[in-house]
Amino acid sequence: MKKIKIYSPATIANLVCGFDVLGLCLKEPSDVMYVKLLDEKKVIINSANGFDLPSNPAQNTAGAPLLEILAETNLQVGFDVTIEKCIKPGSGIGSSAASAAGAVVAANHLLGNIFSKEDMVRFAMFGEKVASGVKHADNIAPCIYGGITLIRSIFPLDIVSIPAPKMWITVVHPQIEVRTADARQILRKEVLLKDAIKQWGNIAGLVAGFMKNDYQLIGRSLEDVIIEPVRSILIPGFDQIKKQCKEAGALGGGISGSGPSIFMISENNNTALNVEKVMRDIYTGIGLSHHIYVTTINNEGVRTEEF
Amino acid sequence: MKKIKIYSPATIANLVCGFDVLGLCLKEPSDVMYVKLLDEKKVIINSANGFDLPSNPAQNTAGAPLLEILAETNLQVGFDVTIEKCIKPGSGIGSSAASAAGAVVAANHLLGNIFSKEDMVRFAMFGEKVASGVKHADNIAPCIYGGITLIRSIFPLDIVSIPAPKMWITVVHPQIEVRTADARQILRKEVLLKDAIKQWGNIAGLVAGFMKNDYQLIGRSLEDVIIEPVRSILIPGFDQIKKQCKEAGALGGGISGSGPSIFMISENNNTALNVEKVMRDIYTGIGLSHHIYVTTINNEGVRTEEF
Repeated sequence: MKKIKIYSPATIANLVCGFDVLGLCLKEPSDVMYVKLLDEKKVIINSANGFDLPSNPAQNTAGAPLLEILAETNLQVGFDVTIEKCIKPGSGIGSSAASAAGAVVAANHLLGNIFSKEDMVRFAMFGEKVASGVKHADNIAPCIYGGITLIRSIFPLDIVSIPAPKMWITVVHPQIEVRTADARQILRKEVLLKDAIKQWGNIAGLVAGFMKNDYQLIGRSLEDVIIEPVRSILIPGFDQIKKQCKEAGALGGGISGSGPSIFMISENNNTALNVEKVMRDIYTGIGLSHHIYVTTINNEGVRTEEF
Repeated sequence: MKKIKIYSPATIANLVCGFDVLGLCLKEPSDVMYVKLLDEKKVIINSANGFDLPSNPAQNTAGAPLLEILAETNLQVGFDVTIEKCIKPGSGIGSSAASAAGAVVAANHLLGNIFSKEDMVRFAMFGEKVASGVKHADNIAPCIYGGITLIRSIFPLDIVSIPAPKMWITVVHPQIEVRTADARQILRKEVLLKDAIKQWGNIAGLVAGFMKNDYQLIGRSLEDVIIEPVRSILIPGFDQIKKQCKEAGALGGGISGSGPSIFMISENNNTALNVEKVMRDIYTGIGLSHHIYVTTINNEGVRTEEF
């Protein structure tokens, strides 16, 4: 029987000044998935570690893209998917995207690599639709492409890989709930032109900094004058964490996705560990449960492994 | 007597989606300046070709930066400047910036290259203040640095050179007047967040396209959904020119500075010449006097020559 094991990584969307367009793939954490090819046209979803995942594939973020693949290709096959969920839903680091992207990459592998990366993003977006009601690619694209991705446009889909130097990422997930819908709703529909200009100066600087391997330029450009001032009020300790992490040497950072996770980018592992300590001290100080990852950029994206 | 000849080139500011932050230096046209070092602390301005330039250096775009250099350095020297004005004031291709930047580069040369490029931009901005009341670096930066420049921030000054592949530029200057003040005034102070997102996706794509030598990505990213729809109504034939130039093979383009010049970027000289024909036919058709330059990006910026 054809089968494959998948590591599908967490991702950071809304990369500071790159709201809605820039995302980044993380080495850790990853969901693990075991996918088997069936000779009958159906999709089976199993949870390996007690997470209460919807078993109806049409309502499951991994299942919906697979149903779409079966519908579009008209192949007489099916998929048996077992998900070991390690990326906590609602953490803001692309949990639903990992399930959706992982399922699609597995299916593509089992079907003989018949899809392009762009095709895979399109299929995986059906999973995001199930999860949040919106077909967005902010997490899907970096999950499938790896590295840092720019989604210049969704319709038509235009994904651009942005080369970048080695960077370390510290992510803290405070155990509170920020609903994506709430995080969207508090944004103003209009912004000041002068703020928008600052933002597009910063994203241009950020892309140039990544591509020139210029850590200082990256640091100067990691500034969000539009979204962060509004959304950060939903995240306890945000301003203090950001300030002290930068004092500890981080280049910069911000809200991961729509929160509540906060990420900070560092030039080396040592700084990333100092940043971890800052985060831990602040959240321990205010008595807020949290989980921290110290990791790097994952340039590979979803990884397949024989089993 | 120490003296130097200067070629100070035209520039394009507000590069499509890079309003207020991205600029580009052109090979042609250039102002020509002859600058002599005096042993007395004064600045003399002469017009070589009949242009009615202010002879009071404090009111002259080339003179004001030189006075500032003398004030800040406290050197007991002066400058005799003769300007052969070739970039028509009010054309939207950085006429005042060419005078200001040219004067500063000349002074720096005559003083033994004591200033950094960033210093020179700072001095030259005093010329822009005389010309338009605002110390902006949109044209000054590409004029001094050459190539394509990002001004990520003015305070503090943060200029980033953006590498790019060979490109041809066709610029048409219709002989009408668009006052910079009017062009500023018709802009809305607020913009839709969704438009701002589109714009920063485009500028990120444009910078990536330049740095990846990806002409198609450059073309897709040359889209301005915020400024151009408002300002282009001030320029006769704009929509028709843009549409037909793209049909003739141009990657894209837009308003140069605050107009009235329109520029189009092409991948090769042949296309740039076809674009020239389109522009000429349209403006000849509506009976509007115009001047067209077919040129390339100038990666050197202001050029000095012994004489």
